[in-house]
Amino acid sequence: MAQLRIALAQVNPTVGDLEGNAGLLVEWTRRAAEAGAHLVAFPEMMLTGYPVEDLALRSSFVEASQRTLARAARTLADEGLGDVPVVTGYLDRRPVSMIRAGLPAGSPLDAAAWLHHGEVLIRSAKHHLPNYGVFDEYRIFVRGDTLPVVRVHGVDVATVICEDLWQDGGPVSVTSTADAGLLLAINASPYERNKDDVRLELCATRAREAGCALAYVNMVGGQDELVFDGDSVIVGADGELLARAPQFTEHLLVADLDLPAAAIEPVTGPVNALDGTTISIDHHVVTEDPVPAYDPSPPTAARPLDDLAEVYGALVLGTRDYVRKNGFRSVLLGLSGGIDSALVATIAADAIGPDLVHVVLLPSRYSTEGSVTDAEDLVKRQGLHSRIVPIRGMVDAFESELELHGLAAENLQARIRANIWMGLSNEHGHLVLTGGNKSELATGYSTLYGDSAGGFGPIKDLTKTMVWALARWRNDQAGKDHPALHPFEVEPIPEAIIVKEPSAELRPDQKDRDTLPPYDVLDPLLVDYVERDMGRDALIAAGHDPALVERVIRLVDLAEYKRRQYPPGPKITPKNFGRDRRLPITNRWRELR
Amino acid sequence: MAQLRIALAQVNPTVGDLEGNAGLLVEWTRRAAEAGAHLVAFPEMMLTGYPVEDLALRSSFVEASQRTLARAARTLADEGLGDVPVVTGYLDRRPVSMIRAGLPAGSPLDAAAWLHHGEVLIRSAKHHLPNYGVFDEYRIFVRGDTLPVVRVHGVDVATVICEDLWQDGGPVSVTSTADAGLLLAINASPYERNKDDVRLELCATRAREAGCALAYVNMVGGQDELVFDGDSVIVGADGELLARAPQFTEHLLVADLDLPAAAIEPVTGPVNALDGTTISIDHHVVTEDPVPAYDPSPPTAARPLDDLAEVYGALVLGTRDYVRKNGFRSVLLGLSGGIDSALVATIAADAIGPDLVHVVLLPSRYSTEGSVTDAEDLVKRQGLHSRIVPIRGMVDAFESELELHGLAAENLQARIRANIWMGLSNEHGHLVLTGGNKSELATGYSTLYGDSAGGFGPIKDLTKTMVWALARWRNDQAGKDHPALHPFEVEPIPEAIIVKEPSAELRPDQKDRDTLPPYDVLDPLLVDYVERDMGRDALIAAGHDPALVERVIRLVDLAEYKRRQYPPGPKITPKNFGRDRRLPITNRWRELR
Repeated sequence: MAQLRIALAQVNPTVGDLEGNAGLLVEWTRRAAEAGAHLVAFPEMMLTGYPVEDLALRSSFVEASQRTLARAARTLADEGLGDVPVVTGYLDRRPVSMIRAGLPAGSPLDAAAWLHHGEVLIRSAKHHLPNYGVFDEYRIFVRGDTLPVVRVHGVDVATVICEDLWQDGGPVSVTSTADAGLLLAINASPYERNKDDVRLELCATRAREAGCALAYVNMVGGQDELVFDGDSVIVGADGELLARAPQFTEHLLVADLDLPAAAIEPVTGPVNALDGTTISIDHHVVTEDPVPAYDPSPPTAARPLDDLAEVYGALVLGTRDYVRKNGFRSVLLGLSGGIDSALVATIAADAIGPDLVHVVLLPSRYSTEGSVTDAEDLVKRQGLHSRIVPIRGMVDAFESELELHGLAAENLQARIRANIWMGLSNEHGHLVLTGGNKSELATGYSTLYGDSAGGFGPIKDLTKTMVWALARWRNDQAGKDHPALHPFEVEPIPEAIIVKEPSAELRPDQKDRDTLPPYDVLDPLLVDYVERDMGRDALIAAGHDPALVERVIRLVDLAEYKRRQYPPGPKITPKNFGRDRRLPITNRWRELR
Repeated sequence: MAQLRIALAQVNPTVGDLEGNAGLLVEWTRRAAEAGAHLVAFPEMMLTGYPVEDLALRSSFVEASQRTLARAARTLADEGLGDVPVVTGYLDRRPVSMIRAGLPAGSPLDAAAWLHHGEVLIRSAKHHLPNYGVFDEYRIFVRGDTLPVVRVHGVDVATVICEDLWQDGGPVSVTSTADAGLLLAINASPYERNKDDVRLELCATRAREAGCALAYVNMVGGQDELVFDGDSVIVGADGELLARAPQFTEHLLVADLDLPAAAIEPVTGPVNALDGTTISIDHHVVTEDPVPAYDPSPPTAARPLDDLAEVYGALVLGTRDYVRKNGFRSVLLGLSGGIDSALVATIAADAIGPDLVHVVLLPSRYSTEGSVTDAEDLVKRQGLHSRIVPIRGMVDAFESELELHGLAAENLQARIRANIWMGLSNEHGHLVLTGGNKSELATGYSTLYGDSAGGFGPIKDLTKTMVWALARWRNDQAGKDHPALHPFEVEPIPEAIIVKEPSAELRPDQKDRDTLPPYDVLDPLLVDYVERDMGRDALIAAGHDPALVERVIRLVDLAEYKRRQYPPGPKITPKNFGRDRRLPITNRWRELR
């Protein structure tokens, strides 16, 4: 056996910010070296950020990534960090482009590199490309066909990339043939509820399959519509958990491992990858000599968060990074006195601090007295910046020129409020947060260009039931020492806001229940229909009330149909005349940098 | 040799409207039978419409497509049309689902079927799945691996689907081994400028490769963001054009072909498809006996449209079908007196008739006298419904509560106008058309939730230069007999609107040239940068002025960055909590139909 201290750098890069990401690489390698690590690993596509979407198809961006990688290797050596091998993800391309109809231009690769002594030692690329859910990788990458195995202090370390773990066959199946002593997986695996349990189980299974320990380093941070949760782990060859990083925060996970010493004669060459392809083992030696024996430190294993803490953590990190990575400092939102905007304000206060959260109270003739006083109570509890702008005069000005009735009149009020948000955003530079929840949006209980306007919707994916649960959970944290939350001493959300009956207050005595089923029966059905994509028969078989199933399917299908009729202005197009670029939102890469 | 009269049904289905599309199948088969056709072919995915996007992943939708196919076959027989073999595209799935990570749920197939005597004779599926540009087919389909060859009146007819023609290897390469007498390709190939020439060349090349005549039937019509142009063609084994359907209209292309008689012993079994896969030839006999000799009719070949007529035709059809397939009858737009809204109004009048086009004139304190009179002149020339609503009182009502300056004040006016459009749309049920052109949108010269608001943007993909060219082209058609255009006797667009200098009229004496380079130098550069995705060095090498390249890249990158910061309200999401469905906009399929 041979000892090895490995460091997994669970960092938060920004898509397109090559220079900033390279800075992270140097900074965290220094921390790892100071911790005495013999090997440091960074996440998938760390140098470019992830997901890069169609940036991968821009030749100048691929070349910028390649140059950044080579320069980062030299910088590490220049700063005295050249001795420790570094594995990182980056964007590369096949040296000889495969020009064929249907393959992405320039043959880009979701690549990994080993850096050592100022050089790029060995390069490989992701073999299994995910193309489902939030992933569209067949569009932008071609697959890799090698398994790099690098001998570090007498241990053969094989590296694979993210999806390579999730699918059978491919480089993981070749790892045991290669007789590796450690399987290192670099990842940009987005957060989903309860995915931490699935991932750990997967790592255990693949470690047993590969016959060696597995080190899994994940990205952390919000990027566009995704949140990466970190949760990097190390498991033994028997699948047992050895070390675990915390969720939703940057972290250097250092662990002392006792690994099988490599055979003198390395395995190389092509191997049947059991998925219809052949993978070549690409072996390289960094150091044959084992590390002199030392006393290992006990490994650390962060406790995973419970469900509500995890969801809230994802929302706070996603909001903070959306604001920051898009170059904003402050946010603005409308505070109605209802639970949705109250929770959004609280998430924003936790994400960037209450002093950077600006709220406007925009009462109309239908707003109740309680709405204003409850909102003012929240402002006082959290110390937000607030302003009251009555909208009555604006409504009157429209109504003196136009005769609008029913929904048209209700929508007008919501759109006047959005105009005020956007006007203040344009004037003062705040990012507008929007407060719609998934129950409303799925059923169409929302106004286009009205309450749905804004740059980021922190609770867009939460059912109303979950909005209430998180509000109560957050209030329960008041006065406790919680590193990811603002230290409010009092409950940040007034109880009156949590217990009041939901209302849009766009006409006299309006209540959500006039239009929608009660949320406690609506929400479980929405989850099954919208997220799990179950059909009518399956929903009824799962125990939902048949009449409610019919009603909710009608509501959701109609809302979806209407929403899709009005795609957002700037993205509408008969696309045929020329495809516009499809790039990530918070992309910091500019042609002219 | 053997004679065969084939009919290509270039029809316009609607995504999700299975019943309506099956109706088209029966109606156009009747027309073909009445024309004496021995074989009728419909486009790719004709029964479901195309693109179905994530509907393909819904089990109940796949089953509905299968049932519709079987029922359509029986209906054809019931209505006395069972003798003529019919080929059509539809959605199917693999009988045994391939459950593997990364493959679409349910293993859907972009399928083709032969219908005859009330039965579904033979089924196949697209082999090459496009996954670039507007296509994402790896997400929703698995590939097919058979080449169906059906003997009809002694001629062996092989069928392939769309992308199978565009890529080397696969079923087309197997066609000559199968010794087919005719290669029938069914397609849903979207319009792009000048693509008609490329397609014809491709058909000629593939006919020579297959060693037989090739019949290419394409879809026609607007569907969501795409327009299908039709342009179905038949070429001989030497690649020579034999027959051609017109663009942008439904059409039955009937042609008498003289084809090689089939060998008695059909070729069957697996063949190396020269793309790393094996394809099985699936042979079936409908009729061995050749058709008794008859006098062939001379083939018809529509003349392709010239460039401007083609672009204008695509815009008219795309607009008409977006309105119609989304269940609207009428449209509403703001008429500013400028060229963009003037062209949009004219396209709308051509698409659905002037009597269904409602315009509003919304002058502010910065609108010139000429803007109103020019707009009124257009209204009179075209016979549109119009209404004037001055916005001054609404602007004043906002400004009495908020202090907005510069861009914030300009944007406010644009957003007040959008509120009026949307209010009238909600009140009266018109679809709002938005008037932004590509030069404005690419450079960010546009207001979010303001002039960019609306359900469909007919000229979103046109540079300003092209907007002027089409306005002049359309005026030139006045008084001419043009079947696709409204018969305006006078020029529909006042000359004053075409020659005036572009201005947003959001502040005193504002002109586009205060902010943007002249359109005649800006537009070619935008096309190269945005559509062709050329980098800085390539743009300069192509002859663009280096200083202008720097300036325009900055403008476009900044606009894109800003636009992406504000994705549309309802689609904003940290998606991780559950993937929302990704379905086509004008989908008519409902779970509860």
